[in-house]
Amino acid sequence: MMNVAKDSLRIDQTRLRADFEALAQIGATRDGGVHRPALGEAHLAARAWFRERAEADGLGFRTDGAGNHSACLACGPPGAPILLLGSHLDSVPRGGRYDGALGVLAALEVLRVVQETGLALPVHLEAIDFTDEEGTLVGLLGSAALAGTLDPDELRQPRGGREVLAAGFARAGLTDESVLGVRRDPATLAGYLELHVEQGARLVDAGVDVGVVTGIVGYCSYRLTFTGQANHAGTTSMAERADAAQGACAFTLRARELVMADYAGGVVNVGDMHFSPGAYNIIPGAVALALEFRSPEAETLDRLEADLLALAREQAATFGLGLEVAWQGRCEPALLDARVQSLIAQAADGLGLSHVSLPSGAGHDAQSLARVCPAGMLFVPSVGGVSHSPDEFTRWADCVNGANVLLQTVLRWARLDSNANLTDEY
Amino acid sequence: MMNVAKDSLRIDQTRLRADFEALAQIGATRDGGVHRPALGEAHLAARAWFRERAEADGLGFRTDGAGNHSACLACGPPGAPILLLGSHLDSVPRGGRYDGALGVLAALEVLRVVQETGLALPVHLEAIDFTDEEGTLVGLLGSAALAGTLDPDELRQPRGGREVLAAGFARAGLTDESVLGVRRDPATLAGYLELHVEQGARLVDAGVDVGVVTGIVGYCSYRLTFTGQANHAGTTSMAERADAAQGACAFTLRARELVMADYAGGVVNVGDMHFSPGAYNIIPGAVALALEFRSPEAETLDRLEADLLALAREQAATFGLGLEVAWQGRCEPALLDARVQSLIAQAADGLGLSHVSLPSGAGHDAQSLARVCPAGMLFVPSVGGVSHSPDEFTRWADCVNGANVLLQTVLRWARLDSNANLTDEY
Repeated sequence: MMNVAKDSLRIDQTRLRADFEALAQIGATRDGGVHRPALGEAHLAARAWFRERAEADGLGFRTDGAGNHSACLACGPPGAPILLLGSHLDSVPRGGRYDGALGVLAALEVLRVVQETGLALPVHLEAIDFTDEEGTLVGLLGSAALAGTLDPDELRQPRGGREVLAAGFARAGLTDESVLGVRRDPATLAGYLELHVEQGARLVDAGVDVGVVTGIVGYCSYRLTFTGQANHAGTTSMAERADAAQGACAFTLRARELVMADYAGGVVNVGDMHFSPGAYNIIPGAVALALEFRSPEAETLDRLEADLLALAREQAATFGLGLEVAWQGRCEPALLDARVQSLIAQAADGLGLSHVSLPSGAGHDAQSLARVCPAGMLFVPSVGGVSHSPDEFTRWADCVNGANVLLQTVLRWARLDSNANLTDEY
Repeated sequence: MMNVAKDSLRIDQTRLRADFEALAQIGATRDGGVHRPALGEAHLAARAWFRERAEADGLGFRTDGAGNHSACLACGPPGAPILLLGSHLDSVPRGGRYDGALGVLAALEVLRVVQETGLALPVHLEAIDFTDEEGTLVGLLGSAALAGTLDPDELRQPRGGREVLAAGFARAGLTDESVLGVRRDPATLAGYLELHVEQGARLVDAGVDVGVVTGIVGYCSYRLTFTGQANHAGTTSMAERADAAQGACAFTLRARELVMADYAGGVVNVGDMHFSPGAYNIIPGAVALALEFRSPEAETLDRLEADLLALAREQAATFGLGLEVAWQGRCEPALLDARVQSLIAQAADGLGLSHVSLPSGAGHDAQSLARVCPAGMLFVPSVGGVSHSPDEFTRWADCVNGANVLLQTVLRWARLDSNANLTDEY
């Protein structure tokens, strides 16, 4: 087949749409979102559906000890490296339909188009659903395991709690050992490509079709527990109290002020609190909060971490409280491969789509893969920038554009040379 | 029997101690406290135990449509009014062994002593365990139902949540109708007496044996929900966020400052928060908080209520959030009967115990009864003032002193006149 013919190849948007609608029913919430926390029943049902679809289309299928599920197409010569395409089918609790799902379905669609066209590429293709991208358990669990960068500590003290992790592992038939044993030899990987919704409003605000991702922020999470003295909320005078809520609330307010004042590119979130014992008439004896913060540069992330922990200690002292600090995990910031960025931009140009280069404020599996092979990401616009919410929405035409850019990027990558060789320095 | 002989009557402290230790095993927590939320399994087990003890001692037993459990002694002439003695066997979640339990057991012990001595009094005696004093469901539920002052709204929107209430009612065989139908005709009540631990440090700090309670603070509770926009915690810039946690936290800090600055006799507590959806990487879309505040005067309670609601609206506006306000209930402040206070003081004097008059910062069932009959309360010292905690502790000698003052107050009350008539103005 000639390059001209390849340039005119498009994904089947009717088939992609049918898949998208079917998948959105799995773990659907009444408000139009989905609830598919990693390794929960709905996530496992989505994976079973994905496997059925792949096998029905005559694609190969593989799963690994971290639960990662892949549709496989042997379109390269024997022993050729694999170009991974993927994203994730898990969602945050009560999240949206697009986040992750679009990338997995577009990857599957690319495999089908290549298969139907009978293209011989210098690489094999694999459409992969990575386990626990969202961090209900650990965050980037499947992709870090595959890259061989998963820290065993993150399994011992996962940010979602060891009980939740153990229950998910039991449900999916995984163990700590199986997860830690799935590293793939980078020599077997040609690279990684991921299509994702932007989850911010930059593309929509600028009226641009496609975002070419330059790098991904790093993030770090902690569970901070302020400890005071549970006591009667009627008989204990205000001055006598050691109210754990005061420390937790003061920290939450000041952390926002700190980041807004001193960390222009950073963000901080207190996403959850748990009060103990938790009653109207008892002064909180302990308040545990879920803290996450991000920065595009590793050094800034370090500095932000130190500042936030100092702030927590300071606020605990102000209110006469104790502080327990539990590290929950860290993802290093990642730069994405410049040559892959260029391929994505060329693919968009070839399709007549406008594009802009931009960093990602969200973590993605591409971050794990970027440590061991050439990795690239492209974004399509999120209406209103809404994300991690049932209100998340991307126009269908943009979803189709993204899938076509993914397909064309794969074809351009394959055209580079007979070994699809971008892997010199990995 | 002569008055001199009555003055020398004492409760059986060995028997009281055995009861106390047995009861503390029901719902016991590993840290030495008890977990007996109202109408939960442990609370129902405690009631079954109480009933067994009463019946084993040959006392009568009654239960009513609000679940209140009573041991009864017909020691008065036919048609005589009943002098209620009591408190509650429920606890706050993971609370202490003394709160409520001491008052019920001392009441039971008074009945046994009167029964054994064969005393004929001008009143009948009833040792009552009131349902849900602590407010896991509604607060003062059983005593308000008995007094006829229970607001049906509090059953429809109970502060513990309607599901928890319904589950408890089902477990105990109660219905809204049965609860609302248990009012007793005040003409049948001679009055109410309650022994309780102080739950504050005033008696301990002053080295005084007994507190004669002058009145009980009123309290009011609300569920306040700050609503923003759930969104991705990495991709949404700090400036763009509508973070519900910011409003909830600012309110929690400012409410404390407000009360400390302007409400010397008042207290405020944010005892619980619930974040939605509640994840490290999602900006909180909604945070619901459990608010309770107290004041000894009704007018001050009104003013504090208005100030706190205004503060919540102000903080919601500051952070661009919505606010949902759900009233959860109110208990009016109560003055306790001056003549009963005097009887308690005389009883303490007769026992050679020091005493002091003081208001109660905690709500008590006496508050409900004070609206329909002469009611009195006495406190014994709480070590360190610790309450609503497994660390709650009262020296055993003080528990015995309190039970003896309760017994002697009953005997002095009975001596007043042949009708034990304190009920003129009720």
